Amino acid sequence: MSEIVEGRNPVLEAIKSERNIDKILILDGKIEGSAKKIVAMAKQKRIKLDFVPKAKLNEISLSDNHQGVIAYVSDYRYYELDELIDKNKTDDIIIICDEIKDPHNLGAIIRTADAVGVSGVIIPSRRSTNVTPVVVKTSAGATEYIKVAKVTNISRSIEKLKQSGYWIVGTDVNGDKNYFDMDLKGKIVIVIGSEGDGMSRIVRQNCDFLVRIPMMGGVTSLNASVSAGILMYEALRQRLN
Amino acid sequence: MSEIVEGRNPVLEAIKSERNIDKILILDGKIEGSAKKIVAMAKQKRIKLDFVPKAKLNEISLSDNHQGVIAYVSDYRYYELDELIDKNKTDDIIIICDEIKDPHNLGAIIRTADAVGVSGVIIPSRRSTNVTPVVVKTSAGATEYIKVAKVTNISRSIEKLKQSGYWIVGTDVNGDKNYFDMDLKGKIVIVIGSEGDGMSRIVRQNCDFLVRIPMMGGVTSLNASVSAGILMYEALRQRLN
Repeated sequence: MSEIVEGRNPVLEAIKSERNIDKILILDGKIEGSAKKIVAMAKQKRIKLDFVPKAKLNEISLSDNHQGVIAYVSDYRYYELDELIDKNKTDDIIIICDEIKDPHNLGAIIRTADAVGVSGVIIPSRRSTNVTPVVVKTSAGATEYIKVAKVTNISRSIEKLKQSGYWIVGTDVNGDKNYFDMDLKGKIVIVIGSEGDGMSRIVRQNCDFLVRIPMMGGVTSLNASVSAGILMYEALRQRLN
Repeated sequence: MSEIVEGRNPVLEAIKSERNIDKILILDGKIEGSAKKIVAMAKQKRIKLDFVPKAKLNEISLSDNHQGVIAYVSDYRYYELDELIDKNKTDDIIIICDEIKDPHNLGAIIRTADAVGVSGVIIPSRRSTNVTPVVVKTSAGATEYIKVAKVTNISRSIEKLKQSGYWIVGTDVNGDKNYFDMDLKGKIVIVIGSEGDGMSRIVRQNCDFLVRIPMMGGVTSLNASVSAGILMYEALRQRLN
């Protein structure tokens, strides 16, 4: 599922061939020649760049010929947002994971998304875990069934989904009503916030509705994959009832 | 939250003083003198015993004076089953975790249990994770609010709960109806099966009702803490509606 590509030319080729690059490690120091080109192309394509000491590269390298650059390339083929949207559907669920960091959480969310029959899961290209081998494993194989789109700008994706007739539902402790008092039928997008901070401010502002999950005890939030499961299954319950 | 107790007398004292012992490691080989007494008392109290080579004990030992025995002692005070049962309540939820192995799952379940306002969580003393530091952390502090009872025999606990007026609800792929078509109000016990195998056969037989979580996609089961969250929140939804 994940592969290490070492050396300047192989990494350049990987970038050019549009493979899914999770991040590039590059030797900290003076950037010259083709390394400069790698940095420029990575920035343009918004690939994560880490500047690291030589010892780190030597430790990771399998070939001992890394030439100051190593890329983590993923074999998971991400989908385009358009591939998740079926314009003929009148009843559809799409999940947005807004900066989920823990691969176990993303894996469990994708697993539940498949069980509920959603059309796809959207993750941002930054500040989020990718579809790593741990995600694949935790999803219990659901990454084979569920389309995952990686997008550079969640707000723009939300805009596009709105234009395609989706209602955007986010969760918030100060939400207007309990999630089960909201009509979750029709074409909806459920936004799952990150583990620590919930949804980002701008994403929250872009939601059509904010619902709350009632909390009767001492803790003030749930595990992200548990919240996601509760909301997705309420949407399914309303559809099956 | 967890402590290592080393040496024959300290371990004997820990057993006698009714501290919560997660397990005892004892040198594999001829068991003599006070070590014999430790083995007998551990068996009587159903404390897990692992017979291990000397190298393992040396590795774990902090004192270098383990005398062939090391106990893992937990500071978490478990409750008795009776402390979870409030006879005056007419509407109550108790959770049984039937052999949950992953501390992250147990932590997330306890966190959700607190959020839903259940009376307590029951775990078996064998083939289950204990309330380890990882469980405490993953619960986001909920172990401070929620009573966890550790019992030696889940079937006997179920019997007692039935006698106290609880209905026992388990999940099963071949369940009679969808969980949201079942009346989950009143005094109920929700049984959560283990990650790999679901509920054990005997526990399944002791359930009053088996409900299924509908699965619309390619995967055939959910993460244990996600299933638990879906069921607990459906029980809460029915109570609040």
